[in-house]
Amino acid sequence: MKGTMTYPIFSDEYFMNEALKEAYKAFESGEIPVGAVVVDHNRIIARAHNSTQKLLDVTAHAEMIAITAAANFLGSKYLTECTIYITLEPCLMCAGALAWSQIPRVFFGTCDPKAGYSTYGIRVFHPKTVVRSGFLEPECAQVIKRFFLERRDLKN
Amino acid sequence: MKGTMTYPIFSDEYFMNEALKEAYKAFESGEIPVGAVVVDHNRIIARAHNSTQKLLDVTAHAEMIAITAAANFLGSKYLTECTIYITLEPCLMCAGALAWSQIPRVFFGTCDPKAGYSTYGIRVFHPKTVVRSGFLEPECAQVIKRFFLERRDLKN
Repeated sequence: MKGTMTYPIFSDEYFMNEALKEAYKAFESGEIPVGAVVVDHNRIIARAHNSTQKLLDVTAHAEMIAITAAANFLGSKYLTECTIYITLEPCLMCAGALAWSQIPRVFFGTCDPKAGYSTYGIRVFHPKTVVRSGFLEPECAQVIKRFFLERRDLKN
Repeated sequence: MKGTMTYPIFSDEYFMNEALKEAYKAFESGEIPVGAVVVDHNRIIARAHNSTQKLLDVTAHAEMIAITAAANFLGSKYLTECTIYITLEPCLMCAGALAWSQIPRVFFGTCDPKAGYSTYGIRVFHPKTVVRSGFLEPECAQVIKRFFLERRDLKN
């Protein structure tokens, strides 16, 4: 699967489309297709996709890898000037990690009604953190749906 | 700081004392002193301590490193036969990671009233997960208290 749409560079849709490209890479590798990019002053400083199967590691979600890579790039534990674009709403683990990172903007594509942190109804982020959803929502949702449909078909 | 007590091998106190030794290593390195060990059939298969300063990585909590190391040792994403001993109650990120790992027993030394997952009042773990606290509680609490007291003294 490949992203075919183009978007104005520096738009939220442009960066979410880059996260979506990561999700497609995960799809091709048989991983649950979630992608993320971390952006610092309009520059992508980290890209990652879910790699739990490849790494045999439940902590290897796209966001966790992207946080570690971005901090490594910046030489700083805290991502206080950054924005993360994630195709899927973060789970509790990833939301907790993003809160520790002090990232001020968390933008995601589609909600995760099964494991998304918002299903718990608690405040995970600092009140000043900007959390927005719905960027390229149909595409971000579609890649996950297709993944699980194909898996179901393989089992039947 | 060193653990001077000895405990019968294979007791919960023995394993928590091993986690405490990891916390002391963190203390000596200037890290918030939290340690963890993962035990599989009475054998320690992973040891770790908080390394967020050294690795410049907010995700490098003792539990996260221990989960990854244990999965790597077992060659399996899931820790379904294991017990984790942690000196401090896990935060949301670590509790979320432990839930993903399917570890059936989470034992910790002392509660974290500031950032512990239980302060959120939500169910993070599977209902069958055994969560117990209070193992070597005074020692596990003391190392943290001493760390922050010494930091405060340094600042004054």
